[in-house]
Amino acid sequence: MSRLAFGVDVGGTFAKIAAVTRAGKVLRKDEIPTDPHAGPADFTDRLCAVLGSWRRRGLRAEALGFAVAGDVDHERGRLRLTPNLPGWPGYPFRDALRRRLRLPTVMENDANAAVWGAYAVELGRRPRSLIGVTLGTGVGGGIVVDGRLQRGATGTAGEIGHTRVAWPGEPCRCGSRGCLEAYAGTYGILRLARRLLRAGPGRGRVLRRLCPNLKALTPKVLRTAADQGDPLAAEVWERTGTMLGLGLADAVMLVNPEALLLLGGVSRAGDWLLRPVRRVFRERPFGTALRAVSLRCAADPDGGCVGAALLAWEETCL
Amino acid sequence: MSRLAFGVDVGGTFAKIAAVTRAGKVLRKDEIPTDPHAGPADFTDRLCAVLGSWRRRGLRAEALGFAVAGDVDHERGRLRLTPNLPGWPGYPFRDALRRRLRLPTVMENDANAAVWGAYAVELGRRPRSLIGVTLGTGVGGGIVVDGRLQRGATGTAGEIGHTRVAWPGEPCRCGSRGCLEAYAGTYGILRLARRLLRAGPGRGRVLRRLCPNLKALTPKVLRTAADQGDPLAAEVWERTGTMLGLGLADAVMLVNPEALLLLGGVSRAGDWLLRPVRRVFRERPFGTALRAVSLRCAADPDGGCVGAALLAWEETCL
Repeated sequence: MSRLAFGVDVGGTFAKIAAVTRAGKVLRKDEIPTDPHAGPADFTDRLCAVLGSWRRRGLRAEALGFAVAGDVDHERGRLRLTPNLPGWPGYPFRDALRRRLRLPTVMENDANAAVWGAYAVELGRRPRSLIGVTLGTGVGGGIVVDGRLQRGATGTAGEIGHTRVAWPGEPCRCGSRGCLEAYAGTYGILRLARRLLRAGPGRGRVLRRLCPNLKALTPKVLRTAADQGDPLAAEVWERTGTMLGLGLADAVMLVNPEALLLLGGVSRAGDWLLRPVRRVFRERPFGTALRAVSLRCAADPDGGCVGAALLAWEETCL
Repeated sequence: MSRLAFGVDVGGTFAKIAAVTRAGKVLRKDEIPTDPHAGPADFTDRLCAVLGSWRRRGLRAEALGFAVAGDVDHERGRLRLTPNLPGWPGYPFRDALRRRLRLPTVMENDANAAVWGAYAVELGRRPRSLIGVTLGTGVGGGIVVDGRLQRGATGTAGEIGHTRVAWPGEPCRCGSRGCLEAYAGTYGILRLARRLLRAGPGRGRVLRRLCPNLKALTPKVLRTAADQGDPLAAEVWERTGTMLGLGLADAVMLVNPEALLLLGGVSRAGDWLLRPVRRVFRERPFGTALRAVSLRCAADPDGGCVGAALLAWEETCL
């Protein structure tokens, strides 16, 4: 039997759970509804039930990594604040899980976990430094320097989603305006697409055919429409990628990493995003850092569980 | 005799030279004109003449740190590019100085050197992480994590001056627009002051009295005028500090350092800059990192020579 760690990645709707080997291989996985309104204790009960049943079937883990979207106090093992999980901040997740499961437990921001998973498994820990950016409903990030995840003074290093790319800019969920997330997060992308569709009733024919109910629009449909030659969908990606490029350029100038990795569902847009990002990078003067950085999209954009498991292992067992 | 290192800090007009102890104390200092148009070999000759005369008088150094404003290739010991020193990029400064002076030599970006000097001497290496920002003609920066200067993949980490704070924004010397330097660098501050003076012929009475020739305006005069109650000068600092705050906020969100230090001549404006920066930090939602960071201006804003000397020592002798 391989040695294992459990990893959990809690999003606003679903929580992914995985049993992961030292090499980052997923031996078993499951998904439970997050159901945030039932509260953090209820969620903990349901999570422990799944992991307990895995154990009874012989999956014995040495550590548990618990990743959540939000401002995580890594030192104390709880959430400080989060937009998607009302009532969850302050709940002592790490200590509760450690006690219930009798496992060394580490709590981490979900973007940090996803970036660490991609760094350890997909990149084989080769670049000495990395900025990873998770593109989903929200936009998060993580930074690796000298092969170590950077947590910063309060565990919030890598928080690129709420750096600004426009003045005053579009409203962001955080209450501010002009944040990168307001452009490159799912809701920002869909807001732009709907606006372009309203402004051009004759435009976006492929898109309208693929998705007659525009309320059901997703980044995935936008990508398919762009692939099929829809100019409106292509324009959405061009503009999204440009704003993403502005935010990434500033981060790369500041941190000067070897590699820059896009993760999360929206990163599946691949070249539709990478092309405008590369153009923004090329256009910047003083761009030594921008020309040196290796930019790509992750092959497995959903490595949050894996990263959480590996981080927990490394911090508690090695 | 104390053990010594030499430190050099080359600006566009003058180069400062110092003999520095391990504790960062300056035992001797001098200044020579940079005279960039005479070329890098001429400058090297004149620098070696000064250091040679110091040696003949008994100042024996163990290392030389050579800091220059611009994009420094730390690995190869030469400039990649710089706006102020035409013809200097490509010249093998480090190797030439090492050979001529027979001293282990390290070449470094001037902002990195200044930040390291302030970190080592003024902050006593206490914060685990720091962003230092140099405010002068240009705006530069340096990042310390876990007590080590971060150079990044190409030696350009900390390059905050050309991150963007406005769109499209004011023109910057680098050829782009909206860079932090276009607002918080000396020329950006003076551009704003002159614009306000032109727009309000009855405004800025104290400022006009202190500086009848507006071509001779400096940040120092603007600070004195603000101290003496000039509302126009106060407005210049308020607007400058606001733009500075926007740039610093993004950097702090990304790196999440314990401390944030302003250095360079413009930082002598002290509270005139710190107040609006703190306001911008307070106004940001999702601001755990912004509320945790300790913000101050350096007491000795010109520690570039000291930092260059200490860096050279640590990298070559310890």
